Amino acid sequence: MPVIQIYCNEITEEKKRELVKRITRVSGEVLELPESTITVLIREMPPEDVGVGGVLLCDRDQ
Amino acid sequence: MPVIQIYCNEITEEKKRELVKRITRVSGEVLELPESTITVLIREMPPEDVGVGGVLLCDRDQ
Amino acid sequence: MPVIQIYCNEITEEKKRELVKRITRVSGEVLELPESTITVLIREMPPEDVGVGGVLLCDRDQ
Amino acid sequence: MPVIQIYCNEITEEKKRELVKRITRVSGEVLELPESTITVLIREMPPEDVGVGGVLLCDRDQ
Amino acid sequence: MPVIQIYCNEITEEKKRELVKRITRVSGEVLELPESTITVLIREMPPEDVGVGGVLLCDRDQ
Amino acid sequence: MPVIQIYCNEITEEKKRELVKRITRVSGEVLELPESTITVLIREMPPEDVGVGGVLLCDRDQ
Repeated sequence: MPVIQIYCNEITEEKKRELVKRITRVSGEVLELPESTITVLIREMPPEDVGVGGVLLCDRDQ
Repeated sequence: MPVIQIYCNEITEEKKRELVKRITRVSGEVLELPESTITVLIREMPPEDVGVGGVLLCDRDQ
Repeated sequence: MPVIQIYCNEITEEKKRELVKRITRVSGEVLELPESTITVLIREMPPEDVGVGGVLLCDRDQ
Repeated sequence: MPVIQIYCNEITEEKKRELVKRITRVSGEVLELPESTITVLIREMPPEDVGVGGVLLCDRDQ
Repeated sequence: MPVIQIYCNEITEEKKRELVKRITRVSGEVLELPESTITVLIREMPPEDVGVGGVLLCDRDQ
Repeated sequence: MPVIQIYCNEITEEKKRELVKRITRVSGEVLELPESTITVLIREMPPEDVGVGGVLLCDRDQ
């Protein structure tokens, strides 16, 4: 059942592959559950859709 | 108030229409609430953004 | 993979059982996926944790 | 830590800027936390991905 | 439709009332939507369920 | 900014500590971001609030 949602910056497919593989392995070990039960959902966030400290990331990076 | 978020594969607008209609009806019946109070949010997930068992869906389908 | 999150009022275990069964069936039919791939997460919300129209549900019900 | 997710209609970047600024300020004041600790995630929802009362918003607007 | 989820520390009911009222007002103004369409869901997070920078908040506060 | 939400079974505080530490490390490495920017939110789900394949986990375990 474990469901893991990751809200992150935009990344390559190769990075997604690595992220899912390693996050699943770590979660399975700590939770003591088979990896097959773990679902990871990646949500890439464009910098104009994220605010930290009241400022959009797209304004920060400028 | 009930809010229902559905993370699913990419589907047609006609499927979304049917999904929202039927999910709302079932939820209203079980929760004994008027359908007008129910909000459904559909989040289509591209296969490179979902991992099951540590493997991206886009790699599984190959 | 489909993951369905339901934010609702507090309900009995029997209602949860019925909700999960029927939501899963409807989703499987519309999405044309086996029911075994569908995960439903129920999040009961106490009325002091939900606001509609700017008013907490616990204040509305009074 | 506070994380605020906003599911809303599609809006301009200027609206996002204002939304993040004002939501962060209000949250910081009420929660009595520095604004720097607050993250806001905006999720624009196209009208065919939202159902209210069992009807897609894109059908309602017609 | 707008749905706003707030993940925050544990707060009093009075704080929740104020948070919902003010967040709804700000969102309605920026999104140019009636307040009646806005739902706010508060999720209080105990400090042992939140990690920032790899450390649980309950360990940070010690 | 990365925010990681983990929906899992009920676990000890020691497990949460380990989960947050290791998930944060892996995410920071893959995303190439400092660990201090990463927030992890753990949501323990009681077995009567999760359905897999249409059946509540609390019924499966019996």
